[in-house]
Amino acid sequence: MSQPTLNIALIGYKFMGRAHSQAWATVSKFFDLDAQPVMKVVCGRDGAAVSEFAKRWGWQSSCTDWREVVARNDVDVVDISTPGYTHCDIAVAAAQAGKHVFCEKPLAFTLEEARTMRDAAKSAGVKHMVNFNYRRVPAVALAKQMIDAGEIGEVRHARFTYLQDWLVDPQFPMNWRLRADAAGNGAHGDLGSHAIDLARFLVGDIAEVVGMKKTFIEERPAEGTSSGLTAVAGEGTEKVTVDDASLFLAKFADGAIGSFEATRMAPGRKNYNRFEINGSKGSLAWCFEDLNYLDFYATDDPGRARGFRRIIATEGEHPYAGAWWPPGHMMGYDHTFSNAAADLVQAIAHDKCASPCFGAGAKCVAVLEAVDKSIESGAWAAVESI
Amino acid sequence: MSQPTLNIALIGYKFMGRAHSQAWATVSKFFDLDAQPVMKVVCGRDGAAVSEFAKRWGWQSSCTDWREVVARNDVDVVDISTPGYTHCDIAVAAAQAGKHVFCEKPLAFTLEEARTMRDAAKSAGVKHMVNFNYRRVPAVALAKQMIDAGEIGEVRHARFTYLQDWLVDPQFPMNWRLRADAAGNGAHGDLGSHAIDLARFLVGDIAEVVGMKKTFIEERPAEGTSSGLTAVAGEGTEKVTVDDASLFLAKFADGAIGSFEATRMAPGRKNYNRFEINGSKGSLAWCFEDLNYLDFYATDDPGRARGFRRIIATEGEHPYAGAWWPPGHMMGYDHTFSNAAADLVQAIAHDKCASPCFGAGAKCVAVLEAVDKSIESGAWAAVESI
Amino acid sequence: MSQPTLNIALIGYKFMGRAHSQAWATVSKFFDLDAQPVMKVVCGRDGAAVSEFAKRWGWQSSCTDWREVVARNDVDVVDISTPGYTHCDIAVAAAQAGKHVFCEKPLAFTLEEARTMRDAAKSAGVKHMVNFNYRRVPAVALAKQMIDAGEIGEVRHARFTYLQDWLVDPQFPMNWRLRADAAGNGAHGDLGSHAIDLARFLVGDIAEVVGMKKTFIEERPAEGTSSGLTAVAGEGTEKVTVDDASLFLAKFADGAIGSFEATRMAPGRKNYNRFEINGSKGSLAWCFEDLNYLDFYATDDPGRARGFRRIIATEGEHPYAGAWWPPGHMMGYDHTFSNAAADLVQAIAHDKCASPCFGAGAKCVAVLEAVDKSIESGAWAAVESI
Amino acid sequence: MSQPTLNIALIGYKFMGRAHSQAWATVSKFFDLDAQPVMKVVCGRDGAAVSEFAKRWGWQSSCTDWREVVARNDVDVVDISTPGYTHCDIAVAAAQAGKHVFCEKPLAFTLEEARTMRDAAKSAGVKHMVNFNYRRVPAVALAKQMIDAGEIGEVRHARFTYLQDWLVDPQFPMNWRLRADAAGNGAHGDLGSHAIDLARFLVGDIAEVVGMKKTFIEERPAEGTSSGLTAVAGEGTEKVTVDDASLFLAKFADGAIGSFEATRMAPGRKNYNRFEINGSKGSLAWCFEDLNYLDFYATDDPGRARGFRRIIATEGEHPYAGAWWPPGHMMGYDHTFSNAAADLVQAIAHDKCASPCFGAGAKCVAVLEAVDKSIESGAWAAVESI
Repeated sequence: MSQPTLNIALIGYKFMGRAHSQAWATVSKFFDLDAQPVMKVVCGRDGAAVSEFAKRWGWQSSCTDWREVVARNDVDVVDISTPGYTHCDIAVAAAQAGKHVFCEKPLAFTLEEARTMRDAAKSAGVKHMVNFNYRRVPAVALAKQMIDAGEIGEVRHARFTYLQDWLVDPQFPMNWRLRADAAGNGAHGDLGSHAIDLARFLVGDIAEVVGMKKTFIEERPAEGTSSGLTAVAGEGTEKVTVDDASLFLAKFADGAIGSFEATRMAPGRKNYNRFEINGSKGSLAWCFEDLNYLDFYATDDPGRARGFRRIIATEGEHPYAGAWWPPGHMMGYDHTFSNAAADLVQAIAHDKCASPCFGAGAKCVAVLEAVDKSIESGAWAAVESI
Repeated sequence: MSQPTLNIALIGYKFMGRAHSQAWATVSKFFDLDAQPVMKVVCGRDGAAVSEFAKRWGWQSSCTDWREVVARNDVDVVDISTPGYTHCDIAVAAAQAGKHVFCEKPLAFTLEEARTMRDAAKSAGVKHMVNFNYRRVPAVALAKQMIDAGEIGEVRHARFTYLQDWLVDPQFPMNWRLRADAAGNGAHGDLGSHAIDLARFLVGDIAEVVGMKKTFIEERPAEGTSSGLTAVAGEGTEKVTVDDASLFLAKFADGAIGSFEATRMAPGRKNYNRFEINGSKGSLAWCFEDLNYLDFYATDDPGRARGFRRIIATEGEHPYAGAWWPPGHMMGYDHTFSNAAADLVQAIAHDKCASPCFGAGAKCVAVLEAVDKSIESGAWAAVESI
Repeated sequence: MSQPTLNIALIGYKFMGRAHSQAWATVSKFFDLDAQPVMKVVCGRDGAAVSEFAKRWGWQSSCTDWREVVARNDVDVVDISTPGYTHCDIAVAAAQAGKHVFCEKPLAFTLEEARTMRDAAKSAGVKHMVNFNYRRVPAVALAKQMIDAGEIGEVRHARFTYLQDWLVDPQFPMNWRLRADAAGNGAHGDLGSHAIDLARFLVGDIAEVVGMKKTFIEERPAEGTSSGLTAVAGEGTEKVTVDDASLFLAKFADGAIGSFEATRMAPGRKNYNRFEINGSKGSLAWCFEDLNYLDFYATDDPGRARGFRRIIATEGEHPYAGAWWPPGHMMGYDHTFSNAAADLVQAIAHDKCASPCFGAGAKCVAVLEAVDKSIESGAWAAVESI
Repeated sequence: MSQPTLNIALIGYKFMGRAHSQAWATVSKFFDLDAQPVMKVVCGRDGAAVSEFAKRWGWQSSCTDWREVVARNDVDVVDISTPGYTHCDIAVAAAQAGKHVFCEKPLAFTLEEARTMRDAAKSAGVKHMVNFNYRRVPAVALAKQMIDAGEIGEVRHARFTYLQDWLVDPQFPMNWRLRADAAGNGAHGDLGSHAIDLARFLVGDIAEVVGMKKTFIEERPAEGTSSGLTAVAGEGTEKVTVDDASLFLAKFADGAIGSFEATRMAPGRKNYNRFEINGSKGSLAWCFEDLNYLDFYATDDPGRARGFRRIIATEGEHPYAGAWWPPGHMMGYDHTFSNAAADLVQAIAHDKCASPCFGAGAKCVAVLEAVDKSIESGAWAAVESI
């Protein structure tokens, strides 16, 4: 094939590293792409572990120093799937080295960092994209199309909740996600950032917020030796330095109003990333726990037959779905990463902006920060413009 | 008011007697009727009990002999809510005495009885109606309207299941519903008759059937002294002489095909009277456990927004619903009896046929019997015409 | 029967008047009560209309002056189902006349009025109850039992939303519910008061709030001649003086955190009064649009079989349900009013406090007011204690 | 790695070929296997097309003659994903050449062929497995574990329906699935075989059946030039020679009773492969359209809190799920193929029987044939033993 190649370097090889690897291994099988991603190198701090990971997942090589990776001539795209506190340094260096940058969310801990990243990417003229993967669920992308087409009219209400329950057990031990220095925020940054990005994607910019955060369990067993995805407790306890939950109200720039909630303390909710949007002509509702469905209500359906339509977003005419299976052959979590990879490859191949770009990532961080400001002041806070 | 009155006599005062009494007490409050039902007399075998019942439920009088009731000059409508083995005698006597007859389902144990009842009512020129109350759920009546309007095209598939679980516990004691001489059939007659009537209402006549019945628990604790609605066991055991479950396949006269199931042995299904009907242009699905909803799929909805619509059948333009509450103010079990009473009163007031009439009741019995014939022969059996 | 009677006087005969009438006509049929309610008199301003209403619904008499009713010696209970601006005067007069008082919600427009009502009732030593009817849905009452029994542990999260859509159409004309002088608030008072009361019932007192209100359609066609439940537009337009929607965040006194939303602008949501409560050991969720169901998740269920249980709250052992029908025979909107009437009658018969009393009604008003204060200040506001 | 390799040869490269390729490319990344599958060669009739497919999906080579593939020394497993009429020849040749055989469903058109295949595999001492992939949905495998553990007691009722809608449009053109010579059966063999296999997996052997089949649209536009997954009509029409739908009743060997339905004519049902099983102690229900959920009802849950539990089968302790993502990160259609591949690899690596083996595949065909016999005779037919 005369198709150009895109050499990918992955930084990080844990949960997100697996999801990104599966995406890169899969994307060009299902999608007709105009460039061919090549799994060039994966980078992590533990040399033996990252080498084994590379073999297992089909990366051509591995290494332990991201600076070395970023400097390689045979790397086109740097894919950052490490914890948030590392994003800025890697992304800026990668951009400065002329690499396209794909970065996990949230883009950064602080708006300042996020702006630095965006500016670096813009100055370098590389493509930049933050991986808010839920935009790539077919049902969510369909919601965006329908809103843009005016099918629910002018948006008035937006309700976003992202509920999980993995911290309900007080014996669940500490890990990096519970430390402010490594994770920045708790549920607020981890889950809330997804909710904010979806809201910005579907409804628009947020102007003002007022909110609160809460840590229900303030001390947990210390972290033990990690054992794959299973949490193991060590000796003693450690103070939790992030929130378990955040809630806030929002005024959108265009007049819509909304509420947001993120928590890891909702028993039975495993990955309950849900929204409902009400407009002047209809409503849309979606939840990741039923990811293939989009519920749609149209006020102009005939009166006696009006009701929420439960659309199964797996038809050929639905976004992304045509690349996969026949209608009704459901998609799962990892498909969203392949869909994102496809969009990124095509943006690079056609020299177009990728979306959501680092600017969008920064706007999300601005909302997170505005909530923190409102908590300090006990009053509404404006979202800083980017 | 110059509105004519209709004096009602109720025979039977147990579960169905309560439901009918509530209907007669309620119907003229919510509906604008052209005759005024009057709760004249209730009849039961236990004089003290029926007298107390009359006081509690607002019947003007009570008595213990249905023949006396039937003969009364001041009775216009005889409402039969007693077990099935009594229906024929009472209904025929009532018709012959010139009373309109409202009869609980199934109309009779045998097709012969059912025909006798129908003929008696026809000869007498009285109104006759069998109380298949599920026809009067607004969502079901809406389904009928939509099918008649061609909204799902030509019907091809019909699936009817009526599942309950009150006999799962082997210690649940005997009662009349478990004795062939009193109940005729078990789940087949009790629940299957509802399913058959709904199928006939919505899809049309059934031509041929093949089926089976099963009694999973063949012996149960003897019946003790009854205590209201709670079952109490006596000493010893008694043989169950009816089925716990029946299943059959059906060929409808118009070419549609269907399956039916009735059981009292499905743990967790409390009153799971469900149907799904697929036509050439769409589908409809309903279940009593969500009685206010009708699910509707239309193949001619726009492609990307096609999905089952979950219609909440409580709008003013939905059948019966306008008489009750504003949209979204849900209806329950007893509303179906009031809706039936309203239809009966209007049929009498306007001298029109009530529906489902005894002919329809007889056709339902014919299907029940055809299933029994198919069980005897192990082969498909034709449904006798009425 | 030597059972004492309770003579009821109903003030108001529109939507709520019908619901209350149905409750009084029904309650003693299904419930074994220790006093017998008698439908003595109904009162309304239009003499002809209220007289017709009395005949239709079985009230012994009617009249046009509530002061006369309150003064009658043969009235034991004054049932106030008029718009909110009339509540205080009637309730205070009734209490001072020694009548028990049953009052529609919200109790009053202002905390000052609410306190006056509560004090008058307390001084008079009469029973007083505000009709937050959703407490009387069996599934909701079951949730209360389960929370009190510790089945979900310590409550952490409370999410209350009450969504309707009857104002989405900008051509829907004005009525009293859209005028501040008659209704006090819009969605905030009408729907939000229900949400607040349920939250107080299930979770406890609210300490602090921050919120917002919004009127999306600020001018509507003027009100025409009313025609039953159907809205008819007159000539010209009129300014809407209440909110279409309100949202607020809450800190409960015991440490739980919550969010509240009330709107009449959510297409497809007919009576979507929903809550989800997450505790340290489990979760509960309920929505009026599926009123007979309570969803329950228990963290101590066996691991592989953990999941939200969809409880159908119609079993004999569920609150209120035993009085009605066998399991699976669903209940509707009006059953909640009968359940409330049963509780009130029993409270009077046994000389116990009715619940929710006017104190609870006042506490609800205090939360409504605190939200208004927070809107004025743009900051968190403390809920005044009662 | 010292891990042994397993060289895979895939025959067929259309819909099933893609699904199998994705499985082989993915399985050893997520699962810790004791042999390493190698994508050696893919075989199809169109040399250019299969060569392109090989490059895209990562097969080391391609060829056009399955006999050549079967004879290769460097092939360990022959994976047959071609239409049913080719299965027998390929499988027998592969077995005789000493290759393990993985075969798409239904195993064969006739019981005779199926027995030949099973005998050939047994004689050759190779592993053999038929790809009823729905057994590998975690929620279904969980259902099997729970039934085996007695959690729903003795099974009484089994209800299996598999509904699709891709043939509703009469303009949908012919393809091989609508020709008896290529496909054997229509919905009966394609969808019904899945339902039968799940029933045998979960409930046990079927002893007797009675059923019917129906072709609603007997003539369709001729097949045009195929264009990927999109159907294109050619000129003229062609007679449909398979069924659009089949229904049958079943008596299981152990006393349970069941109903089965398969159709491609149910508007709105995209891949509605559903079962509900009722036992003496509980119930289980599942549908592929919500594949990650298993509904479970236990009669011994505490009375007031009894209800169907909606288990999200994505926990580490659920079958297969631990290999993939954290709880709540949903799985889709293609995961079932990877799960099947993992089981097959492990069976080969540990020299254990794979399941479902060709014997199970033959038993499924025996049920399909018994239904056909019952249709000919119009009476119940015994299922032939294998």
